[in-house]
Amino acid sequence: MNYTKSRYAVMNTKEKQYVIGVDLGGTNTVFGIVSHDGDIVAEASIKTRSFPTAEQFVDAGVECLTPLIDKVGGISCIEAMGIGAPNGNIHTGCIELAPNLPWKGIVPLAQMFSDRLGVDVSITNDANAAALGELIYGAARGMKDVVVITLGTGVGGGVITGGQLLYGHDGMAGELGHVTMVRGEGGRLCGCGRRGCLETYCSATGVARTARELLSTTDRPSLLRDKSPELIEALDVSIAASKGDELALDVFRFTGDILGQACADFAAFSSPEAFIFFGGLAKAGDLLMQPIKESYDRNVMPVYRGKARFLISELMDRNAAVLGASAVGRRM
Amino acid sequence: MNYTKSRYAVMNTKEKQYVIGVDLGGTNTVFGIVSHDGDIVAEASIKTRSFPTAEQFVDAGVECLTPLIDKVGGISCIEAMGIGAPNGNIHTGCIELAPNLPWKGIVPLAQMFSDRLGVDVSITNDANAAALGELIYGAARGMKDVVVITLGTGVGGGVITGGQLLYGHDGMAGELGHVTMVRGEGGRLCGCGRRGCLETYCSATGVARTARELLSTTDRPSLLRDKSPELIEALDVSIAASKGDELALDVFRFTGDILGQACADFAAFSSPEAFIFFGGLAKAGDLLMQPIKESYDRNVMPVYRGKARFLISELMDRNAAVLGASAVGRRM
Repeated sequence: MNYTKSRYAVMNTKEKQYVIGVDLGGTNTVFGIVSHDGDIVAEASIKTRSFPTAEQFVDAGVECLTPLIDKVGGISCIEAMGIGAPNGNIHTGCIELAPNLPWKGIVPLAQMFSDRLGVDVSITNDANAAALGELIYGAARGMKDVVVITLGTGVGGGVITGGQLLYGHDGMAGELGHVTMVRGEGGRLCGCGRRGCLETYCSATGVARTARELLSTTDRPSLLRDKSPELIEALDVSIAASKGDELALDVFRFTGDILGQACADFAAFSSPEAFIFFGGLAKAGDLLMQPIKESYDRNVMPVYRGKARFLISELMDRNAAVLGASAVGRRM
Repeated sequence: MNYTKSRYAVMNTKEKQYVIGVDLGGTNTVFGIVSHDGDIVAEASIKTRSFPTAEQFVDAGVECLTPLIDKVGGISCIEAMGIGAPNGNIHTGCIELAPNLPWKGIVPLAQMFSDRLGVDVSITNDANAAALGELIYGAARGMKDVVVITLGTGVGGGVITGGQLLYGHDGMAGELGHVTMVRGEGGRLCGCGRRGCLETYCSATGVARTARELLSTTDRPSLLRDKSPELIEALDVSIAASKGDELALDVFRFTGDILGQACADFAAFSSPEAFIFFGGLAKAGDLLMQPIKESYDRNVMPVYRGKARFLISELMDRNAAVLGASAVGRRM
């Protein structure tokens, strides 16, 4: 389950040429067999919520995987397995207190799969898996110092330093959505119980909230007024902005401004070569990236200015989560 | 000059048992010969400002070092040399644009000493050297994930992740004094040209400034009123606080509150096992540490609460800067 030298000694032998990548989400779990080149050569999925216990889930997972493994020549062709899962902890191999999964408490999922399949199994959280995916297969190839920011329902982070994923002493590093951007009582309330977290402004949820605030506190015209406010999602804001809607564009400017400020602080910490944005909101492209870059240049310490690149994930059109998870298994 | 495997192959042979540590400061440069146990067995210094060119400085340094090296058995007993210097860059081996040194521009100091002495020479900035010193000889021994914060005239940082010093892609990581704590026009102006940097509040200079602000904006009684405001230094505030002066105690509460907020953000980034405080202001001990810990617990994301330790450097009574610099030479 853990990194061992002997495990990597087999990497170059011909037969161990695939890694299993598992994207374990709140709704679906996707199993993929990934080649060393990053091709997903076989794939299948099960419904995560159908299994009230982790034992039942592992049984179904092994059943789902068996024909895929057979297809590539049997378990002797599998080097390792990597799982990306909410609250997955690389140090313990467990899913720990995941609020959106059916199994409560501490679930030693890596050990459970390893016992059944006879291969090493590693587990980490979704954002870390995405960062490893970018490092091995995506926009961060060849880089050693990168910050990957996932912009989805929440904001997550995966930090690569010196070519290694930064896990921290307890496996919990990279919770970049929970740095404080607006201090004091004026900060938006966050799901973590505190106020002003980056996530409350720059997640898809945060973008929709900003739009609703602008609509309700001004009488500015906007295409977004065609929809009832509680139904507005980040995608609506993105579509309106791409049509030149000034209010929607302001929502992206506001979001990018805060992200640029956060990246300026991250630069002072780890001075990455690039910031890579991943997830639904990153699909807004320049609508978001341009304000981020402008804010970064305004806010960053002069010694870092103009050095870091701002990139969008290269994996979003492929099955990034499975690739990222396989990279966790293959992590070097 | 750079890390090479072969360099470390000689570490276990008996004869290479010392490392040269150089603490290059704006006023003095101290050369020390350090044993593997962290004992400084020989030491001498020169005045940095006496040498208008880097060539003259290196000549004088070699002259100063020669009897020290002879004392421990000659250059064959020296494994490597490490230099801690303002704006020292580990990647280039250069001092880059240091505002407080007599030599301007880019100075390839590691190469210059290496050419003269025939040993590998590494260079990094003072805060990184302090962090490596703590890791190898001090409060961070045995730890793998640590944030070292130096509280002096400015605020510096050295970040250890996975047992390695975090340098970033350009060698400029760990400028923790320049994360933004107060955003917008209300933030204090920083020497870096921006506003609201941690350094403007939590350096020795920042503490004195806070005291002067409290004295001039209130009529609260304080022992500090015995001194003319422009002469008040952090040490005066520390002495007054240790006598129970409420205004001085408030200065430390304010300073600790901001440091605790900064550490809460650092936890979200790298989740260290400990925060270690180094430098003059850290000598205030519990006057500062207690407010830091309380603020951290109030501000940090619940998943990190109660995990990190808050420690004071164990090297401040030894020649920490020379030990830290020697650790740069010995870095693993």
